[in-house]
Amino acid sequence: MSAPAKIGLLGYGTVGAAFAAQVAERADAVEAASGRRPEIAGVLRRTEGDFGEILAGSEIVVELIGGTDPARDHVLEALRAGKHVVTANKQLVAQHGDELFAAAREAGVQLRFEAAVAGVVPVIRVIQESLAATEITKVFGIVNGTTNFILSEMASTGASYADILARAKDLGYAEADPTEDVGGADAAAKMAILARLAFHSPVSLADVTYEGITEIQPDDIAYARELGLSLKLLGVAERLDGGLSVRVFPCFLYSGHPLAPVSGPFNAVMVEAPAITEITMSGPGAGGTETATAVLGDVVSILSGDAPVHEVRETLPIVRDIESSFYLHLEVADEPGVLARIADILGRNSISVRSVVQRGHRDDARLVMVMHRCAESQFSSALAEIAPLEFMRAAPRAIRVMEEEFT
Amino acid sequence: MSAPAKIGLLGYGTVGAAFAAQVAERADAVEAASGRRPEIAGVLRRTEGDFGEILAGSEIVVELIGGTDPARDHVLEALRAGKHVVTANKQLVAQHGDELFAAAREAGVQLRFEAAVAGVVPVIRVIQESLAATEITKVFGIVNGTTNFILSEMASTGASYADILARAKDLGYAEADPTEDVGGADAAAKMAILARLAFHSPVSLADVTYEGITEIQPDDIAYARELGLSLKLLGVAERLDGGLSVRVFPCFLYSGHPLAPVSGPFNAVMVEAPAITEITMSGPGAGGTETATAVLGDVVSILSGDAPVHEVRETLPIVRDIESSFYLHLEVADEPGVLARIADILGRNSISVRSVVQRGHRDDARLVMVMHRCAESQFSSALAEIAPLEFMRAAPRAIRVMEEEFT
Repeated sequence: MSAPAKIGLLGYGTVGAAFAAQVAERADAVEAASGRRPEIAGVLRRTEGDFGEILAGSEIVVELIGGTDPARDHVLEALRAGKHVVTANKQLVAQHGDELFAAAREAGVQLRFEAAVAGVVPVIRVIQESLAATEITKVFGIVNGTTNFILSEMASTGASYADILARAKDLGYAEADPTEDVGGADAAAKMAILARLAFHSPVSLADVTYEGITEIQPDDIAYARELGLSLKLLGVAERLDGGLSVRVFPCFLYSGHPLAPVSGPFNAVMVEAPAITEITMSGPGAGGTETATAVLGDVVSILSGDAPVHEVRETLPIVRDIESSFYLHLEVADEPGVLARIADILGRNSISVRSVVQRGHRDDARLVMVMHRCAESQFSSALAEIAPLEFMRAAPRAIRVMEEEFT
Repeated sequence: MSAPAKIGLLGYGTVGAAFAAQVAERADAVEAASGRRPEIAGVLRRTEGDFGEILAGSEIVVELIGGTDPARDHVLEALRAGKHVVTANKQLVAQHGDELFAAAREAGVQLRFEAAVAGVVPVIRVIQESLAATEITKVFGIVNGTTNFILSEMASTGASYADILARAKDLGYAEADPTEDVGGADAAAKMAILARLAFHSPVSLADVTYEGITEIQPDDIAYARELGLSLKLLGVAERLDGGLSVRVFPCFLYSGHPLAPVSGPFNAVMVEAPAITEITMSGPGAGGTETATAVLGDVVSILSGDAPVHEVRETLPIVRDIESSFYLHLEVADEPGVLARIADILGRNSISVRSVVQRGHRDDARLVMVMHRCAESQFSSALAEIAPLEFMRAAPRAIRVMEEEFT
């Protein structure tokens, strides 16, 4: 019988506590799967435990503190001390990936982080292992459960963003300070990680263009539904013009799209490559037990055998001016010639209109349009011309639309 | 620079040729991912190549012959000679798993077979690695692309099984002899493999109860659509009453079910466990390039490091009498009292009716019912009473229904 595998646990919040419980409950299964019995050697809490002591007594360090400080220092120190590390910390990997991977390679240890993206949905493993030699062209999906819950609820109830956010907090789907989720930074960090792994390029958070959902109005969702569209906060990482585009943005999807039915706090990621067509993976994107299960899966893998550490193969340039299709919501005065003026501006900017819904009259006339794909810079120019027109009664609202229709 | 990794390739059909092409095209990527450059050391074709010679010159043997003879002998010989083996052969693993896994363990080599189930959709890796220590309760899904294509086309065109099968052959979605696919044996082999891995129990093909789709009539699909149901050939492996049930059967799904939109030659597998809620994975279930990509992923994993070989942890009994919900299609004479007689028989067998559609009259009266869940043995008893009734104009047609409704 081999000695137990000593695990140093950093952080004891929801996920940390769930992980400690699983190590105890599933020790037999871990041993059956890997030949080693896991044991928590020490726990570092905010007010309890000594990091140096825990480090000295562990062969695997599990970092579940979150944030980058002191997580970064602890993880680097652990790697340099020759300990394998498992982390669920997306910001840590997204912002300090290069440094962490270098430290792991140098020390000859593993750095695993399945739980950092899409919770228990095994996107990291599939991209890094199953598709390690496949030329991936695009990775995209719904990687933030909080915003997907909010958008699903806004669509089904018609309530405002603020009302649904309050409800999400009550239900535990949103944190007390939800800024990172609703502002898009959480999804951006996850997309940086997926882009790095899929394209073997040193993508970090700063390379990701992102927007959140705080400006979404219930009537955007309602109007778009008439056009057969549903709204998601989408992360997209794709090869484009010899470089990469990595971005997070609210996006309307047509009803046949595989991601359209993904609702509530679920995550779903699609991977595209010529050699595989596409793979879709979905499941709960958060949850203490679910996330802890992903962490435990990484621990089992470390105990089961060696694995290579992520390595950059090329540094692809980040492409920022891309093409998109847009939904445009205009509150206008109900007077003759308005549609003609708008259409003229769009036409002069080479933007072609795909569908229009016109509603209301007098004080509440609205023009809701969906455009065909155009350069985002062209669309911005058109918007800059439209915004100051005398008949505009509010700032124009634009939301991207995924143009591909699935049937 | 380390020596190239020599691969012996057995079989050179669609998948074999695609695999050889990928090894050449993706050699750089394999080397970047694993540190070793792959090289095809020899190819065994039906009329060409010497197995002994290929074996001697390889460190990994890739078996893409299919069938169990001579695949079984070759794979066993390769394992015993200390070579890692990758195979896409579901019948081989389903029928001879115990022997193969024992040989691999004894020789200290890896036996990988991602491509054997759901093509490039990485269900094997996720169950064996991500969820190695998780107590899985149920694995189910659509694991045969040929039948899913046929059922999708029957639903969208209304054409007969025979007509669509002919079309599927033309399109390359069905083999010249489609018996194994349409009869359910292919899906049964895949479910045996998934059950073995998910439950660590020595499940083999003989443990799987299976039915195919050859008896499905277009009007079953049409009537069921009125009830909001779509038809899939479903594989289910679940823990039940202290044992396991593993089965393959045509099954109606309600429209909100995550598997309901999976159409054409796609596969999709759902894994359920208390600790993960559920994970769904979908993608192309076949195709030369897709399957070869899964094989190459296994080769990269072997080159990247050690991994444990599947090991049985307990032998769970196979449970055969389970509960199901049924759709029942009866062609009856249009005369008074028919519904009452049927309802009486169902009632006496403790079967409760969930919905009824009655159609036509005189020579073409039909009664289409969906029952609530009952023991399959009870349902069989009721059917045995109904079949010989004087007003029955054809044999009763029964198809299972997944009772859970998703919203």
